[in-house]
Parts: sequence; C-alpha cells; structure tokens
Amino acid sequence: MNAQTEMKPYVIGLDLGGTNSVFGIVDSRGDIKATTAIKTQGYDTVEEYVDASVAALLPIIEEVGGIEKIKAMGIGAPNANYYTGTIEFAPNLSWGHDGIVPLADMFKERLGVPVAMTNDANAAAIGEMTYGVARGMKNFIVLTLGTGVGSGIVINGQLVYGCDGFAGELGHVIMRRENGRVCGCERTGCLEAYCSATGVARTAREFLATTDEPSILRDMDPDAITSLDVSIAAGKGDKLALRVYEFTGEMLGEACADFAAFSSPEAFIFFGGLTKAGDLIMEPIKRSYDEHVLKIFRNKAKFLISGLDGSSAAVLGASAIGWEI
Amino acid sequence: MNAQTEMKPYVIGLDLGGTNSVFGIVDSRGDIKATTAIKTQGYDTVEEYVDASVAALLPIIEEVGGIEKIKAMGIGAPNANYYTGTIEFAPNLSWGHDGIVPLADMFKERLGVPVAMTNDANAAAIGEMTYGVARGMKNFIVLTLGTGVGSGIVINGQLVYGCDGFAGELGHVIMRRENGRVCGCERTGCLEAYCSATGVARTAREFLATTDEPSILRDMDPDAITSLDVSIAAGKGDKLALRVYEFTGEMLGEACADFAAFSSPEAFIFFGGLTKAGDLIMEPIKRSYDEHVLKIFRNKAKFLISGLDGSSAAVLGASAIGWEI
Repeated sequence: MNAQTEMKPYVIGLDLGGTNSVFGIVDSRGDIKATTAIKTQGYDTVEEYVDASVAALLPIIEEVGGIEKIKAMGIGAPNANYYTGTIEFAPNLSWGHDGIVPLADMFKERLGVPVAMTNDANAAAIGEMTYGVARGMKNFIVLTLGTGVGSGIVINGQLVYGCDGFAGELGHVIMRRENGRVCGCERTGCLEAYCSATGVARTAREFLATTDEPSILRDMDPDAITSLDVSIAAGKGDKLALRVYEFTGEMLGEACADFAAFSSPEAFIFFGGLTKAGDLIMEPIKRSYDEHVLKIFRNKAKFLISGLDGSSAAVLGASAIGWEI
Repeated sequence: MNAQTEMKPYVIGLDLGGTNSVFGIVDSRGDIKATTAIKTQGYDTVEEYVDASVAALLPIIEEVGGIEKIKAMGIGAPNANYYTGTIEFAPNLSWGHDGIVPLADMFKERLGVPVAMTNDANAAAIGEMTYGVARGMKNFIVLTLGTGVGSGIVINGQLVYGCDGFAGELGHVIMRRENGRVCGCERTGCLEAYCSATGVARTAREFLATTDEPSILRDMDPDAITSLDVSIAAGKGDKLALRVYEFTGEMLGEACADFAAFSSPEAFIFFGGLTKAGDLIMEPIKRSYDEHVLKIFRNKAKFLISGLDGSSAAVLGASAIGWEI
C-alpha cells in the first residue's frame, strides 16, 4: 500500500438495490469497518434520495475518522453507466425511471470525494478481482445468477465497458433461436430466460406440465414455485428438481463455451442466489462446457463460485469500483 | 512520429499463408516500399523455410536502406500464438504440423530485430486500427469471411488474446444448436459452417436440393459450386443466389447481435472474399442486426468493409503487428 492509501485507507461502497440501499466503509483488504442502510424508494426526487443517503453516511464516516480517511466512493446500481456516472431510465427506481440521473456527480459534490458507478454485475467482477477469487487474474468472466442473469467481463485486467458503457450483457445472448422463451428484454430465447432464478422456476413448471414424473413440487401451486422451492426439492433428492438443475447447468456450460471463443478467460466465476445449489449446478456446467467448447480451450478455464461474503458481496463489489478511480 | 520512428521508419510484414509467404516492407502510413515472396511449402524443416525467407528478404531490406531502417517484423500465420511467438500444430504447414515452432524467435535471431506473430484475423484487426477504417477506434471487431470465419477483437484499444493467446474464435460460436452443419472443428452448428465461403457454397447446394426454384446454378455440378459462382449468379439477379446472401447476412447479423452483448463495439468490420459482394451481404447483415440486437445497442454500431487494399491487406495487417511491439 502506498502513502496515499495509508492516509486514505477506506472507500465507501453503495449497493443500490431496488428495495434497499446498503452502504459500507471498506478497507483495502475487503474488511467492512462500518455499515448503514436506507430504503431506496419513497423519495420524489433524486435530491431527497441523496439527502437521506448523506444523512445516513455522515455518522459512519465520523466513526472511521472523518471524510479525510475516505479515498473514493463506488456505487453498484441498475442501469448505471460507468462512463457518464449516470443512471439511465431505471424502470424500478421511483426517482430514476424517467430520465438520466447524474448520481455519481451528486455524491461527489456532497461528499467531496471521487465517485464511480457501474452496474451490479460489473461491480461484482471488480469485487472478485480486488477481494475475491479473481485476485491476480487478468482475464475472467463473472456471471450473476439472480432474478436476471448479469455479467462482468475482465480482459487484460480491465473491465469491459464497450463503446457506450453497456458492454457485458451476457444474460441476453440467444440460446434458443427457435421457439425460445420470451425474455424481459422483449426478445426470445435469451440465456436469462432460462438460467436466472425465475428461469429455473419456469423450467420446473415446464417439466411438471410436460411430464408425468412424480415430484414433491406437484404438491404446490405451479405459479407459486420459486427457484428456492426447486433447490429444496433437489436437496431432498427429487428427480425432477435435479433435472431442472441439469438443464440449467447444461445451458450455462454451452453459453460459456461460446464466451470462451470470444475472450478465452482463465475463469468463469458464478455469483448470486443460484450458486447456493453448489455442485448441483456447477457439475453440469463444467460437464457441458467440456463437451461443447472448442478443442483448443478444453480443460483450461476454471469454474468458481464467488469468493465474496454473500451478505456483503454487493457492497464489497461496489466499494471495489472506488479503488479503481 | 517520434525520433525512433524517423530513424527506423519501416516494419517488415509477413503474410504466411498455406501456399505463399508474402513479405512487405511498410512505412507508418501503410505504404508498401518493397515486396517479395516465397512458397510456404516444400521445406522439410522450419530452418530451411527461414533460410529461404531471409534469402528473399535481404535484397529488399537493402533496397530500403539496410536493416538499421527496420524497427520490427510482424507475422500473420495460422495457429500462431502471440504470447509465445510460436506456431502450434498447424495442420496445413509441411514444416509445422507436428509440433510447436518458435518462428518469431528464429526470425529475431536471423534478422536482429524484434518479431511478433499472431493469427491472420488478429493481424487484420491491428491492420485496420493502424492503417484502415478503425483508425482512432478503441472497441471494434473484425470478422474475416474467407475459407473459414476468423475474428480479431479490439477492446480498450488492445487486441484480445485471452489467457492463452487463442481468444477471438468467433467463427466457432454456435448458431444452430439443433441439426447444425458439421464444422471443420468437428462440432456442429458453428458460424463458420454457414458464413464462410465454403458455407455459402453449402447453402447454395442446400437451397438447390430442397427447392424447385429455377436458378442458373442448376446448370452446374452441385459439388463444383463455389462462393464465387454464387456471387456471379447473384450479380446477374439470380433469385436463389440472392437468397443465399440474404441467409448468410441474416445469420451474421444475429451473430453480431450476440457479440454486441459481449463487448458493445463501435464497429463491426468485415474482411475477406465474401465482402466483395458488397451490399448484397452488408444490407442483410445490418437489417438482421437491428432486428435482433438488444434495444440499448440498436443503431449504435457501424458496419464497415475493410479499408485495407485487398491484394496487400494481409501483408499490411501482419506488418501492423510490428508497430505494436
């Protein structure tokens, strides 16, 4: 650590989610020194949201020794553009759905420290490189398997933002070009429509509707089935639920085989709710990858689960963006 | 240009093809000052190949003022690994098919200048950035449409080599996951199996076999049809041949839509034989891309044909690798 880091040993991370905004003050090893949180919604304007954020932040900033100990702030947020520091037309934010919100500049003005912002999957990738399983790696891809499928791509040690700041939308490569499922992006056949948490629940419903296979999931209202229910059933050895994970992992492996043809990463790192299934999902991913990938890439890439502490992973990821400024 | 470039104003480019090895001495604007060529095959060992190359090179090096005018050498070659400067198991090279040939080091030793080597698609990408239509661009993808489909990907101004030097095999992303055509890589459904020159001829044969549509291509032995025949027929307004280009362009547009989700490039640049069809292929590519790409990327990327002079494009591309050392 250089003198600058010794003088300013912390960054602020903000995980700006649809419901909660969680703040953490983090040191260079990824230890969270202080946290606070506010509700994300319920403000009429972004100014009110920033006011509430700063009011919550000031006490924990004092706790670690004042603003002169803070090097920067990093924000992980939906629809965030790294290049401009803006949130653009975020459908789920009461104060951000109908325009371009210069959130990074607003925090910079109020706190007097540099602020960088990107989407949560990119934040996760920088988080893995800074504190997690990608330390020392120059080429890897993080896939976030949550409500949707997101991605953060690192090439030559740099996050890939593309010409417009929106690169790395691997949840929206097309995996089924015929009779594909409708995706939230209004197209059909996207990876996300199959391999997100909601995709897993959809697959379970499809398997239940199209087979007579016995399953404890048949005791539930099909529309109420979630990926958690599938995971619990699979944990009990339910064959249909296990097949759902096979199907999901196989498609993820096929997708990763295509991603290898693009950037030949050292590792694929999986992050988010679905990874709690562990080997149930990771084994079919690896098997399918080796089966489908171009021969020159076979047995090269590692398949890893995120090394960031689950409950604070998003805050750590966001804070890591701060070190990059 | 700095003092170094003024003192050493030239690089040597070597386009090492399956049949011919073409050398050019190139200045920083992409003007070729002298050229020579030898046959690539017919040598028992790589030493003999390098001997013949150096013998051919010495007179043209003298022509431009001697080796002290040469900054470096760049080589574009099949199965070349940029990181190691080696050609690895190149099936079509008599002196390189059964091992790892340290060709860059061999030329470096003989000529006394730094030597870098990469595959021809990567060389084309660096060539476009140095002398062609990608000057000033930091994020773009070159797709070479020749006997196969190759690619060179530039992100943040750097060529993407991946963890092993083999990144950028976009000809081998899977476009048909069911009933796909067998590809030279022994898998099925690859982009290359449809959108290479041989893929175009295959599509024509398929259309002829599965329809009764009249076509001047029916006068030929189906097995003898090449992409050039399809191009000539399309130029005469032959509807079936035109449909072949529609089909090929549509698939390339769909593939580019997936590539945009990866790296959101400023431009897609097409290189090689099939681009001679001009709008016949470029129009369906653009139309299909806009139809299939994720909304946030729509109407952003440019679709360009290579700006390198056709006959010397490969030598220019190879030479451009030399400036990057």
